Amino acid sequence: MQRLQGIAVSPGVAIGEAIVLDNEGFRIPRRFLTRHAVRNEIKRLEAAINESTAEVERSRVRIAAELGDDYASIFSAHAQMLNDPRLREELEELIRERHYSPEYAVSRVLRRYAKVFQALEGSTMAERASDIFDIEKRLLRRLLGQKREDLSRITSEVLVLARNLTPSETASINPKFVRAFATETGGPGSHTAIVAEGLGIPAVVGVGAFLAEVSGGETVIIDGDQGLVIVQPDEETLARYRHEVDHQRSLAVKLQELRDLPAETTDGVHVQMLGNIEFPSEVEHCLARGADGVGLYRTEFLYLTGGSEPTEDEHYEAYASVMKAMGDRPVVMRTLDLGADKLPHLPTPEDERNPFLGLRSIRLALKHVDMFRTQLRAMLRASVHGELKIMFPLVSTLIELRRAKMVLADAMEDLEEEGVPFDRNLKVGMMVEVPSAVLMMDHFVEEVDFFSIGTNDLIQYALAVDRSNKDVAGLYTAAEPAVIKLIQMSVDAANAGGKPISMCGQMSGNPLYTMLLLGLGLRALSATPAALPEVKRVCRSVSIKRCQKVAAHTLRLESARDVKNYLREELNRLLPDQPL
Amino acid sequence: MQRLQGIAVSPGVAIGEAIVLDNEGFRIPRRFLTRHAVRNEIKRLEAAINESTAEVERSRVRIAAELGDDYASIFSAHAQMLNDPRLREELEELIRERHYSPEYAVSRVLRRYAKVFQALEGSTMAERASDIFDIEKRLLRRLLGQKREDLSRITSEVLVLARNLTPSETASINPKFVRAFATETGGPGSHTAIVAEGLGIPAVVGVGAFLAEVSGGETVIIDGDQGLVIVQPDEETLARYRHEVDHQRSLAVKLQELRDLPAETTDGVHVQMLGNIEFPSEVEHCLARGADGVGLYRTEFLYLTGGSEPTEDEHYEAYASVMKAMGDRPVVMRTLDLGADKLPHLPTPEDERNPFLGLRSIRLALKHVDMFRTQLRAMLRASVHGELKIMFPLVSTLIELRRAKMVLADAMEDLEEEGVPFDRNLKVGMMVEVPSAVLMMDHFVEEVDFFSIGTNDLIQYALAVDRSNKDVAGLYTAAEPAVIKLIQMSVDAANAGGKPISMCGQMSGNPLYTMLLLGLGLRALSATPAALPEVKRVCRSVSIKRCQKVAAHTLRLESARDVKNYLREELNRLLPDQPL
Repeated sequence: MQRLQGIAVSPGVAIGEAIVLDNEGFRIPRRFLTRHAVRNEIKRLEAAINESTAEVERSRVRIAAELGDDYASIFSAHAQMLNDPRLREELEELIRERHYSPEYAVSRVLRRYAKVFQALEGSTMAERASDIFDIEKRLLRRLLGQKREDLSRITSEVLVLARNLTPSETASINPKFVRAFATETGGPGSHTAIVAEGLGIPAVVGVGAFLAEVSGGETVIIDGDQGLVIVQPDEETLARYRHEVDHQRSLAVKLQELRDLPAETTDGVHVQMLGNIEFPSEVEHCLARGADGVGLYRTEFLYLTGGSEPTEDEHYEAYASVMKAMGDRPVVMRTLDLGADKLPHLPTPEDERNPFLGLRSIRLALKHVDMFRTQLRAMLRASVHGELKIMFPLVSTLIELRRAKMVLADAMEDLEEEGVPFDRNLKVGMMVEVPSAVLMMDHFVEEVDFFSIGTNDLIQYALAVDRSNKDVAGLYTAAEPAVIKLIQMSVDAANAGGKPISMCGQMSGNPLYTMLLLGLGLRALSATPAALPEVKRVCRSVSIKRCQKVAAHTLRLESARDVKNYLREELNRLLPDQPL
Repeated sequence: MQRLQGIAVSPGVAIGEAIVLDNEGFRIPRRFLTRHAVRNEIKRLEAAINESTAEVERSRVRIAAELGDDYASIFSAHAQMLNDPRLREELEELIRERHYSPEYAVSRVLRRYAKVFQALEGSTMAERASDIFDIEKRLLRRLLGQKREDLSRITSEVLVLARNLTPSETASINPKFVRAFATETGGPGSHTAIVAEGLGIPAVVGVGAFLAEVSGGETVIIDGDQGLVIVQPDEETLARYRHEVDHQRSLAVKLQELRDLPAETTDGVHVQMLGNIEFPSEVEHCLARGADGVGLYRTEFLYLTGGSEPTEDEHYEAYASVMKAMGDRPVVMRTLDLGADKLPHLPTPEDERNPFLGLRSIRLALKHVDMFRTQLRAMLRASVHGELKIMFPLVSTLIELRRAKMVLADAMEDLEEEGVPFDRNLKVGMMVEVPSAVLMMDHFVEEVDFFSIGTNDLIQYALAVDRSNKDVAGLYTAAEPAVIKLIQMSVDAANAGGKPISMCGQMSGNPLYTMLLLGLGLRALSATPAALPEVKRVCRSVSIKRCQKVAAHTLRLESARDVKNYLREELNRLLPDQPL
């Protein structure tokens, strides 16, 4: 049994068979072959070597024609290395005698060669290790290309272990079969975390290097409540977790019963329950969990798939499908909230050492007004299908907001001239996620129709902590008193200005904070759909008066630990049947 | 004449001969030779090729012995490329016929070759361009190694133009001869900016690529007030700027007369004027400008020179020399305020995508307690020489501050046991530079003896803007109303708690903000020594009552532009003889 501590990013527990995703370019874990596979695997290795050699030879011929033989000699050198009989022998022996997979054998042997280069003095010689890595990569690309695991093709229930999951990998996941994730890298708020939450499956990230020890097929427990990954659990542990899974199932059934009941406090105050979505298909999850609308539709996905900028019609189709599915329930669409480094069709900014403090989100949109206008036009066009609201992210100054509104006004005017219908009374709002926005709320209330507090970024900037950096992730928590004060300031200012305010960061989906948030004056919470039933359960069990007492007490506390302990106690007192 | 707009980071105007620093690894600018130099330069190129070939051959022999001939073939390929007769011919022709410098010829030809590789399809072939870059680098290292400009060896007055200046380069500058800087990269708050301010010479950064067009020796104007670099100015421009330089000189003389006068407002309120320093030698500048003490001694320099961690005695010597030079004037020493990525003797953190939100400053110190304790012990030992105060940077939570104080208490206990003398009543303070610290001021006043507002970082986090990123640098300004509110909150809380508060960011050295800062309640300003006379002049010309009116009006404004315009008007009204 191996217990690994990571960061819990999506709650719940899953037990099942592990599948390990090998990502090209990353360390190849140890895999062993069954005896009868050896012969075929050696053939596969030989084929990979031969194909790679042919590829190198084609490069050589081309370069020789363009720049001459001397320059083509680099490829001859690579071909020579690939066909070094000593290398072949060593690889085949590892496969035959030790039953290493060809991938593992290639990786092991060539990395050892690379180390010999690296150990030599003089930076130039050490740099030449990159040639060895190049040969390794070339061979692995051939070997893995033939049998790379594909998440969309999984047809039995599995727990996915990976170094990291890319957006396209997570997008192809079928939640029927993939029952939990654990990754070596990542942190709270990483893409993997958001997707796991959206799918409502347990996930643990930031476990650190552990995949080298897992070969796939083992029984694994992923505990998304405690942030644990347990490989090959012993009988006792397994029994304990099986019991936990049963308990969760019965709780889930109870929560499901809440679906059609209103989120109303015991003293009759209604709380709006909204869903955060990333893909149009997630609208289903919102409806299944009884959401009153979509409080945050993240539109980044459109920009991340495919290599080119999405067209207005591509935007429109996605937006219209969400609007139609939601019927007369409101949908808040957030405009592009990505960094320039993430957009394949834009030039990567030079020297951007701190992308979270760089050209991203509304700043990027205002630098690429054509791209921004395309998205806004599509949103406006989709607004005829229901109650669509537009929200600008990362607004940090008044001027920035006014510039964004001006682009929107232009887009409206254009549509008007073209005779294209849209909702002229569409509401325009902004995220409150930069400390400066909180401080300027008294001005912002005059300029927008609504607000939504984005706790993920707000925590990050308020505490100067990158949530995806594991060296400082310990400082990142919504329970930090300074963060709670910023929320209080935002809610007070919005209420004073008579403008609705909601929250759509991960904090709003955590039942630990529900009483506090209601006590601070929030009456709309947007969260990943899977989290809504539990939050609703807290709302339906408590009075606003009690929440206000909880908030007042919390605001006097001085550390995140004190806040968490106090809120946990209060929640356990409120709902003693389900200890947190 | 070529006018280039950059970012003004240190005021003043300088006119003089340009010298261009070529940094290895960067684009090599176009340089032309005089006719009689051609023969020697061709010899220099040949020597570089021959030495590089010999170096490659030595590598080949070693690898052949360790891994066999097939693997050594990569070096044979490099040697072959280096000695390609076509390459030699082409390079020599460019030097002979076009009078290119060998560096420029090598860079031009090999980058073209690399492009041929990069243009070929297939990522693996494109990657091979790195072999060409390797050969380029190898040759340039030889060529530049022989004649690299060294700032410490400059013995005539020059204006330095560079892509960027490294800390070790700036440290070796003799301000007698280097009269201004302009760099292609960087932003306000970059190392170059801070050093230029410290030296009191004009500087412009973030000009963008322009060095390719400058060959050195041209007349250049660096206008550190407007952020302009003018290459080969026309007669009219030159005359206008010469007049400006004369005006500045006579103003400097007037300001110098203020040195021994107190910074007292017209209604008799004393303002403490403190200097920011980076190197012990800058104490002189503080004294020459009549500073009441050192408000910020940045200790990072000790960690950046040499490859290993400084010893306790190395720390002590630097600190003691500052204390002795300052006599009975107070000195605030800030503990290590660097990121892990900058410290050569620590492992570089993995995946630190946003170092400004990462493991730096007090966080880093608390992860490397031994290193932290070494610095604290040295400060404590130096405290016997005068009034030394210790200040912790980047404190974001109460727990963090308490942990830092605990390490300090341990260090004190150890010294006590060892019988080493130190000032037992030494004051301990913290920087207010993270938004969360401002929000928690009512708790922090109970735990420290003094505060200093660090506007550089505070602006950065409050607005989520990396000041060194030119794509968003436009958002970075102390005039943003949200920033001014954070300052107000900090000062109010410190005053309410009866703890002194000063400011040590660049804002406090800008006379534009002096009235505002006094009006907000600040009574101590720490700035680069060169800025003190002008700030003092404002203090001596105004009443606190008037400052309070200015502050009250400023707090009602809604944009940075409005704030700047208003403060400029007010300052011009106060001091009409020196328009800003």
